[in-house]
Parts: sequence; C-alpha cells; structure tokens
Amino acid sequence: MPCMPAAAILLAAGLGTRMKSRLPKALHPLAGRPMLNHLIAACEGVFDRVVVVVGPDMPALEAAAHPHATVVQAERLGTGHAALQAAPLLAGFEGDVAVLYADNPLITPQTLQRLRAARDNAGLALLAMRPADPARYGRVLQDASGNVTRIVEFADANDEERAVGLCNAGVLCAPSRKLFGWLRRVRNDNRAGEYYLTDLVPLAVADGDRVTAVEAPEAELRGINSRVELAAAEAEIQARLRRQAMEQGATLIQPDSVVFAYDTRLGRDVTVQPHVVFGPGVTVEDGVEIRAFSHLEGCVVRAGALVGPYARLRPGTDVGPRAHIGNFVELKNAQVAEGAKANHLSYIGDASIGAGSNIGAGTITCNYDGFAKHRTTIGAGVFVGSHTTLVAPIALGDGSMTAAGSVLTKDVAADAMAFARARPAEKPGAAAAFRAARRKEKK
Amino acid sequence: MPCMPAAAILLAAGLGTRMKSRLPKALHPLAGRPMLNHLIAACEGVFDRVVVVVGPDMPALEAAAHPHATVVQAERLGTGHAALQAAPLLAGFEGDVAVLYADNPLITPQTLQRLRAARDNAGLALLAMRPADPARYGRVLQDASGNVTRIVEFADANDEERAVGLCNAGVLCAPSRKLFGWLRRVRNDNRAGEYYLTDLVPLAVADGDRVTAVEAPEAELRGINSRVELAAAEAEIQARLRRQAMEQGATLIQPDSVVFAYDTRLGRDVTVQPHVVFGPGVTVEDGVEIRAFSHLEGCVVRAGALVGPYARLRPGTDVGPRAHIGNFVELKNAQVAEGAKANHLSYIGDASIGAGSNIGAGTITCNYDGFAKHRTTIGAGVFVGSHTTLVAPIALGDGSMTAAGSVLTKDVAADAMAFARARPAEKPGAAAAFRAARRKEKK
Amino acid sequence: MPCMPAAAILLAAGLGTRMKSRLPKALHPLAGRPMLNHLIAACEGVFDRVVVVVGPDMPALEAAAHPHATVVQAERLGTGHAALQAAPLLAGFEGDVAVLYADNPLITPQTLQRLRAARDNAGLALLAMRPADPARYGRVLQDASGNVTRIVEFADANDEERAVGLCNAGVLCAPSRKLFGWLRRVRNDNRAGEYYLTDLVPLAVADGDRVTAVEAPEAELRGINSRVELAAAEAEIQARLRRQAMEQGATLIQPDSVVFAYDTRLGRDVTVQPHVVFGPGVTVEDGVEIRAFSHLEGCVVRAGALVGPYARLRPGTDVGPRAHIGNFVELKNAQVAEGAKANHLSYIGDASIGAGSNIGAGTITCNYDGFAKHRTTIGAGVFVGSHTTLVAPIALGDGSMTAAGSVLTKDVAADAMAFARARPAEKPGAAAAFRAARRKEKK
Repeated sequence: MPCMPAAAILLAAGLGTRMKSRLPKALHPLAGRPMLNHLIAACEGVFDRVVVVVGPDMPALEAAAHPHATVVQAERLGTGHAALQAAPLLAGFEGDVAVLYADNPLITPQTLQRLRAARDNAGLALLAMRPADPARYGRVLQDASGNVTRIVEFADANDEERAVGLCNAGVLCAPSRKLFGWLRRVRNDNRAGEYYLTDLVPLAVADGDRVTAVEAPEAELRGINSRVELAAAEAEIQARLRRQAMEQGATLIQPDSVVFAYDTRLGRDVTVQPHVVFGPGVTVEDGVEIRAFSHLEGCVVRAGALVGPYARLRPGTDVGPRAHIGNFVELKNAQVAEGAKANHLSYIGDASIGAGSNIGAGTITCNYDGFAKHRTTIGAGVFVGSHTTLVAPIALGDGSMTAAGSVLTKDVAADAMAFARARPAEKPGAAAAFRAARRKEKK
Repeated sequence: MPCMPAAAILLAAGLGTRMKSRLPKALHPLAGRPMLNHLIAACEGVFDRVVVVVGPDMPALEAAAHPHATVVQAERLGTGHAALQAAPLLAGFEGDVAVLYADNPLITPQTLQRLRAARDNAGLALLAMRPADPARYGRVLQDASGNVTRIVEFADANDEERAVGLCNAGVLCAPSRKLFGWLRRVRNDNRAGEYYLTDLVPLAVADGDRVTAVEAPEAELRGINSRVELAAAEAEIQARLRRQAMEQGATLIQPDSVVFAYDTRLGRDVTVQPHVVFGPGVTVEDGVEIRAFSHLEGCVVRAGALVGPYARLRPGTDVGPRAHIGNFVELKNAQVAEGAKANHLSYIGDASIGAGSNIGAGTITCNYDGFAKHRTTIGAGVFVGSHTTLVAPIALGDGSMTAAGSVLTKDVAADAMAFARARPAEKPGAAAAFRAARRKEKK
Repeated sequence: MPCMPAAAILLAAGLGTRMKSRLPKALHPLAGRPMLNHLIAACEGVFDRVVVVVGPDMPALEAAAHPHATVVQAERLGTGHAALQAAPLLAGFEGDVAVLYADNPLITPQTLQRLRAARDNAGLALLAMRPADPARYGRVLQDASGNVTRIVEFADANDEERAVGLCNAGVLCAPSRKLFGWLRRVRNDNRAGEYYLTDLVPLAVADGDRVTAVEAPEAELRGINSRVELAAAEAEIQARLRRQAMEQGATLIQPDSVVFAYDTRLGRDVTVQPHVVFGPGVTVEDGVEIRAFSHLEGCVVRAGALVGPYARLRPGTDVGPRAHIGNFVELKNAQVAEGAKANHLSYIGDASIGAGSNIGAGTITCNYDGFAKHRTTIGAGVFVGSHTTLVAPIALGDGSMTAAGSVLTKDVAADAMAFARARPAEKPGAAAAFRAARRKEKK
C-alpha cells in the first residue's frame, strides 16, 4: 500500500430518474445493503478518508454515509461541480484524492489499490474498461508509450477513434492540490451547461502531467441507471458471493437459486439446497444442512444443525449444535439449545428452548398481547405436545411434558405433566344425521 | 393504422403430437394463458375480425376462442386447406386477411401492424426472420429490388440458396379475394399429399403480384412443437414481463426467479424478493413489498402492504393499505382492511378483517362444514389470540378480543373478551414417571 | 454389444482436497446420488464386472460401492498405480478392462459402449474430447490414418501441438493382459514421482499396438475437482433430467427452477409449476399437477392428484388418485386414498386417510410420544374439523366427524360425531378494560 494518505470523494447526489423511484438511487440495495455502502466498504480498506457528496433533502443518504462526512451539492451542475463540493471538507488534506460514483458499487478494493498505485507514476490516473458493447462510452486515446492523450466522447469520435476498445469509466485519482486546481478550472461551455469531471484529462495533459489508464473488468465498472441494470448488478454480486461460498467449502446444489446477503458466512461442509434466501447477518457453522425453501436473517446456525425445508429464522435466533428446525417453523429471537427439535408448523418467538427438548407440531408461543412481548422459557429435556399453546410469560421446567392440544398460561414444574384440554365426547350417529340434514337443506 | 378492414385466420387445428398431451396444443398455457389466447390478444388490436380454425372434437378450443368465430377443419389436409375452411365465415369480407398459427403465440401487435402496412404496397406480404440456426427453415429468395421471388424449402435448396439467412415464418397477409383465390388454386401434388400455405407465394408471383417480406425477430416467430419449445417460449414471455415490470419502476431482486402471469400489474417502488409466483389476476399497488416464496393469484395488494415470506393469497383476496400478511398464511376470498395483520401460520377464508386488527399465530377460520362455505366477519381493532378457531358463520365485534387457544362458535360483542378453553392442570412428577415407564417397556 | 466380457476399474481413491470437505470426493452427491454411484450405474449395463479402487479409511465409499468389489490403494502413487491395485481382483479375467474416474460421473453408457466397440479394432482405446477451453489438457496426437501416436502434456507441447483441439480425457480400455502388462511397466521417473495411467499410450505404441481415440462430448468428461465444478456437473445432470421429463410429456413451466433427483419419474400431462424440489424415490403418475414450492421425496402421487403449493411429501407417502394435498401440509408415511383432501396447515404422519375424507385446516396427528411412533387411521368419508388434534394410536370410523378444535385421544365410531372442547364464554367489555389497563401501565 502506498504510504501517502488518500481520500475518496463519492458522488451520490444523483436522483436516478430512470429508476422511477422515491428512493435516492444510491440507497437501492444490492445483496441486502445500499449500493452506497458497498462502495464505502470497498473504499474503507484503501482510503484514509471518505467524503460523500449528496443532493439536497436526502437525509437517509446522509445517515447511510455515517460516520463518513457528507456535503450537499445544492444545485446539480455536473460531476465536476459535484466533486468540487468536497473541497472544503478536504481543505488542507495532502495526498491523493479519488473521485468515485455511488452507482458503480461493484468496484473492488483490488482495483482501487491499482488506481492508487498507478497514480504514483502519473499526475492523473483513471479507470478504463473494455466493454463488450462499447457503443455509448467515451474512448480513451493513448500515445505510443501508453500515456492517455485524450478522452473523446462517442458522439465526437471519428471511425478510427470509435474502433478503440478502451473506454473511460469516469473514476480518477490525482494529488489533492492538482485535483481541486483542475476542478476549479473546468468550464461549462457545453450544450448541457454542466461541469464535467472528464474535462480534467485535457487540463492535466495541458499542464504536462502524465495521465495513465488502469484497466479493470467491465463487471466492476458498469453503471446502474435503471432497475434492469440494478438487477444485472445484483446478479454480478450474487455470482461473486456464490463462488466465494463454494470455494470456502460449502456445497450449493443449485447456486443460481440461492440468494445471499453481502455478509453471509458459511462454514465448511455446509450444504445449501436449492431455493434458499439469506437476509443480512447470518452465520452458518460447519456441517450444517440448510434445506430447500428456507429463509434466514440475523441468526446463527451452529455446527451440525439441520434447518428446513421451509424454515424461517428471524433476527435474534440462535440454532444450537445438532438442533433440528423443520418445515413451516418460524423462529424469532429464539435460542434453541443443542439437539433440540422443532420440526413442524410452529411459531417460536421470544423464547429459549433447552437442550434435547422436543417441540411438537403446531406449537405456538403467544408472545404478544397487543401491547408488549413476553418470553417463553422451555427447559432441557422438555416434551411439548402437539398443538400446545404457550401463553407467555411462561416457563416449562426441565423434563416437563405438556399434553397435546393444551393451552397453558402458568409455569410448569420440572418433571411435571401439564394439561388443559376438554374431555372428549362422542355422539353416536350424529355425523350421519348431520349429513342427512344438510343434504335435505340443499334440495 | 391502415383504414381498410382486416381479418385474421388463426390455424389451431394441430394435434401437436410431439407435445405428448391430451390437451390440444393451442391450449397449452404460457404465463397462465392458453397460447391461442395470447395470439388472439395480439390480433385484437390489429384486426377487425378473428376466425379460429380448430380440429374436430376440440370443444375446449372453441370455448377458448369465444367470442371469436370458429370453424372445424374436419380432415387435416395441410395449412392451405385449413386456411380455406375460414372462407365461408369471411364470405363477402372485403379487406386484408392474414393467416397466423396458434403455435406462434409470441408474435407482437407491432409486428402484425407492420405486416398489414407492408401489404398496402404488395399483393402478398409475409413474415420472415433470420434464425440463429436457420437449418430446417425454408429460405426467402428476393430479387435485386427486394421483392420476394420464391420460397425454397431447405431440402430443395442449393448451397447458394441455403446461404441465405432470411427464412419464411409462414405468416402471410393478402386481400381477401386474392387470398381465397390462391388458396383454391393450391394443389396437393407433393409427397405428403397436403395443401401448403407456402404455395401461395408462387401463385402470387405467377399472377404478377408483388410479394414482400417483413422481417421480425426470431423470438416472436419460433414455433412451439414440443414441451421443450413450450418452456423456451415461456422463458421468452417471462423475460418480457420481467423487463416491463422493472421498466415501470418495480425492483425484482432476482428477476429469473419471479414468475409472472400475462396480466400481472405491479406499481412503482414495489419490491419483489426472489422466488415469487404470480398467478393470473394480480394487481399490486405502489410501495408494496412481496417477500420470498410468496404465491399470489386473483388478488389486489394495496399501497404499502407487506406480504410474505411464504404468503399465499388466493382469488378474491384484497390486502389493504399497509396491511401485513406473513409466513405460512393463506388468504382465500379474504378482505383485509388497512393496517391489519395476520403474520403467522393462519388460514383465513371467506372472511373480512377490520382496520388495525391483529390475527394471532395459528388462527383458523372454519369456513367449510363439508357442504357449504360460511363467512367470518372480524371488526376493526380486534385482537384474535393465537390458536383461535373461528367456526363460521361468526362475527367478532369491533375492539373485541379472543383468548389464545379458544374455539369460538358464537358471535362476540364489541369490546368483549371471548374465551373457550379448559382449565390448566398439572400432575407433579408425571412426566418423569411417564418416561420411566416408557423406558422400562422398551427393555 | 461386443460378446467378449468386460470389466471396469473405477478410480475413487482421490481425497479431493480442493473440495475442502471431510467427505471423500466420490461420495459428493449429484441429483441426490453419490457421484461414484452415477458412474457405477453407467457401467452396470456395459461392463460385466466393476471394481472400485478406494483410499485407506474410506468405509463409506466401500459401502457405496457395494455389491461391487473394492480394493484399497494404500499409498497414493498415481493413477497408474491405482489401476494396478485392481489386478488381484481381476486375476484370470479374460476380456477388456476399462479404467474410469469417479470424478467423471456424467459419462453415459452410450459413450462407454462406443469405447468398448472401438477397442475391438485396436490394442488400446481411449476417450478424447474437444473442450471449449482446452488449455490445461494433454493433447491427443494422431497420424494421417487417425491412429493415436502420442499424448503430449500441455506443458511439454509446442505451438503446433497446442493448436490440436482433441484432448485426452484419461479414460481408456484394453484387453486385460495387455492393460495389466503395461501398468506393470509404467515408471515413475517424473517430477511428481507418480505412476501415470497416461503412460500406457507410449507403451502400447512401442508394442506396435494400434491406439484409437473415441471422441465424446466435453460435458460427459469434465472432471470434478471443486465445489464450483460440482455445481456445474449438477447443472448438466439437471438439464438432462429436465429435458427427459419434458420429452416424455411433462410440462415444466420454468425448468431451471425444478430440481430433480436421479430417479424421479413423471407421467404424461404432469404439470410442474416453478420452484419444486424432488428428492430421491418419487413417482408421479399421469395428469398430476405439482404446484409451486412443493418438496417431494420417497413418495408416489397417483393419477390426477393435485399437490401444493407448499406441500411437503416425505418418504412412505402415497397420494391417491385425484386427492388434493395443499399448502403448508406435511405428509410423512401417510397413505391418502382416492379423492381425499388435506389442504391447509396440517401435519399428517404415520397415518392413513380413507377415500373422500376431508382433513380440516390445522389438523395434527400426534404420532410421537417421545419414545415411539403411533398410527392414525382415518376411514372413508370422514370429516375432520379444523384444528383437530389426533392423539395416536387412534382410529376414526367411516363417515365420522370431529368438531373443530377438538383434541381426540380415543377411537371414534363410524358415523359418530366426536368433540372435545370447552364451552365458549364471553366477558362483556373485558377487552376494552384490558386495553385501558395496558395503556395505563405503559405511561
């Protein structure tokens, strides 16, 4: 890593009108995290300071940028103007300054490091790419020794220039004084009346500064201007996350059907069946099997546990080693100890389940009374009968049992059997009589 | 739009033996609608009349064509013969007549408009395409001025002709009198002994009529002859529907995992998580979030509502503004008012839920007695406790509550608390004794 | 089929360190079956004997190979050495012997037949392919008459040799005596100090034996060395299974979202909606519809039945003709007779349901008492009310009914009505009072 300090200015003021959204473009999420925060995360290991340029009335964007400094671009006068807004915040900063775009969230720290390193041998370094379809991009023209001489917009390019495959990605890096000096010299005498960041290149060339291009994959540099492009970026980030999970020793039977969050962590010999969705904040330890149609967020699944199919694990949940959580079971803020099981059609919220306990099918913890949430505490070695209703706050002692179909409102002592159900009765022939009556009515 | 009237003959008599199905080929659905009806929908904005040629004993196909006229092709003697069956129905019709195929259901109204417009300058207009793999198609041969001179079947083509990329799609359009005149002149002196629609081209050329080809994308014109091709057509139509939803302002996190019906309508800033299926008849208003693994059909979801994961909304359901329908919840013919919630493991059928009411986990409306369906009416601000069984017909007054685990068979007054459950009891040590006895048995 | 007997040696001793797994590589499953067993299945119709070479301490692999013979390669000294370990087991065997790799599980019986047939005209036959990216493979060099003269490793190849597209797949076949003779002559004077199977080619050439290459698709011959490659192989096998199901007359609306097991059997006019997972051992008869988000394993679904959405059918389940199994319903070892229905939120385990019976929403069979499983027997024409808890062992007679919300612990007679629920009661105003008290507490 270069030893000079470096800062990054992130341009996030764009309205993103092609998104057709009330949400600022930079807040649209990818893999469960706003695109701005993807870019911030990529910058944090590479730059010492990060400054985010936002538009007016974007408090949610300022909150997302926190703890990094933000500055408001009051009028939208172009990318050069936007970058210049960061000048007061970086006043006196001596070092390199890069300018990046919030709608380029797939850029990697490795590419940013290469940009910084390239800047050491040039007055201005910029990122370039070779898009499969270069049509609308500006071309990067270089001299025989590879120095950038000019960037020509597609509309202004002649055939020879258009044949150049190297395209400008817009990202650049220069020493602080030079960068802000050039930004102040950019003029807006163009059709749109805007100040363009691209105009720094001719200024650098005019100053006799060496300009160098760092080539990076198109997948990192493609901009996001519409929901179709957002979906394409999501696909790219998911492909990275899936590959990473497999390379670290997880089996994804059908990778394309597994959706990760940016921070999903899977251990070795984890098997993820098809059609599984991970929200943010999930850690899965070694040897776990996540079966089809499961949905996990904000939870830990410990070694050797078995989850799903159709399990929903919500935030605050901790599934213990070798525990089983089965189909149509929802856990919310539930701590399940080693080897415990809840396999069928249950809602377990604000609850703890002790080691080796078995929760019968159709068990429901009534944790909410319309005003507050209450806890259910189930001890170790407890057998909760099917269709048990546990009205919280309630505690079931170690080794206790509940009779199927009971509605329990009071604590149960250890080793006790609790029941609360009506005596069964039978009316002989009543079903036949009921059917006869109903058929008669229908006539 | 041209001002001459126009009619379309849709050839739907094919048995589709390669489909290996008891269902007539034209009734196999795409995006929830029979392929015949896709083609009819494309025609309805372009043609004044639509006539469908069906095979014998295809009452379901005639019903699907309704209210358009149908005619039975009693013997399957080829496409030319099939088109000719429509002559009596179009007797006296003055205008253009196009012939289309029910197994080309992806053709767009735009392409059909272009076909009609091209006919204005020619005696016969036909659709052509440039397939990625042109192998088995007949080639469209043109003279220097672009007029079609001949269509040569692949088997009969020489190398030079096979090098031609433009292929015949089979669809054509001509003035009524000419079309039926040519159809009557087509002969069946070929190996199969069939009357081919393609033979209209040499007849038109022989008559000195100009023949023109309108090029359209292969994706619109590929035929469907097998279930593999049916799946490919479904993929094409889904790609269109997904793109359209995104372009109109919905976020599809993983578009390929969302399955639309032909008529799904999504508002702006709707987010659809991965793995969601829409059946026909769904409207989703602005700002709704549809979470993973949800299944919707025949329902309306109003602004700001939250649906899923694992929500099933069935026909007749109306989810009100900012209402929440959660996991493992099935709604059927249920009207849920603003801000109401049913979040866990419930079946709500033939019911209405008032504004702000909360339906506890495991609530079930018993709407069916084996003979008839009965309604459940839940007022506003009601708190239905978990595991409540509501035996319909039943009404819960505004502001009422039900105790968890109750089975209710009678109406509950406003602001009242209803309960129906047994008194809890506990046998100390009974669980331990049970375990001891069971273990002893096992030895 | 050639009439000489033939044997196959399957090399399965590899640790597969790039898999990062505790499971031997050959046991990683594809479409629900270990890759070794895929290869064994491909061999069984082609070879008379199969011998599996395993590594030390791989008892699970030996079990998977059963009833085929296994031999342990005690030291990992290369593929040639591994193949030679099979010599004692094939002592006295007169016929062709092929050597295959357990991490090539996608090879087809057709390709193996072609390899055998090619051996009839050569002393040594080997499989070759033309990979899209041939980079790291050894090239197969042939003389003018197509005989293989040499295999040159990529590292040793000159430009001309590298331009050859035909690559060695490593699989070969020779008469038993020749094969083992050559194997004994292979030397390990290379950098790795290993005995390479590839070295049989120069030995055969040196002996004046004709060596012939049989070309096969890359998709069959690509090796599996990492979880990324495992996922790619899974995709290939799923594509085959999907295509096969469609060609046999099933509609897969979105094939890529349907996951098959290696032995899934679907009838004609079966429709599989998107997002369905089949585990091993499933047979689906004609005319069945499997709706979205269903998960089936080890079960039979009979003609005209309707399954899902969100149905989970577990091993031992038999869904009868025209029966309906609906959403959030789990069946385990359950036999459902003709026309019976269980449509909502139920767990039916170790149970039989008679013809035409209706199982209400939220029904649960309590089949487990913490020690043993017990059966529930439901007769024909039974109406089980919603939220019924059936404590097994229990039998409901034909035509009986149960009242909604009942917990039943005893048998019910035919045509009788069973109930077990508390009397409903109501406290006027109590809900309003509760809310007032709670609000006061909150202040």
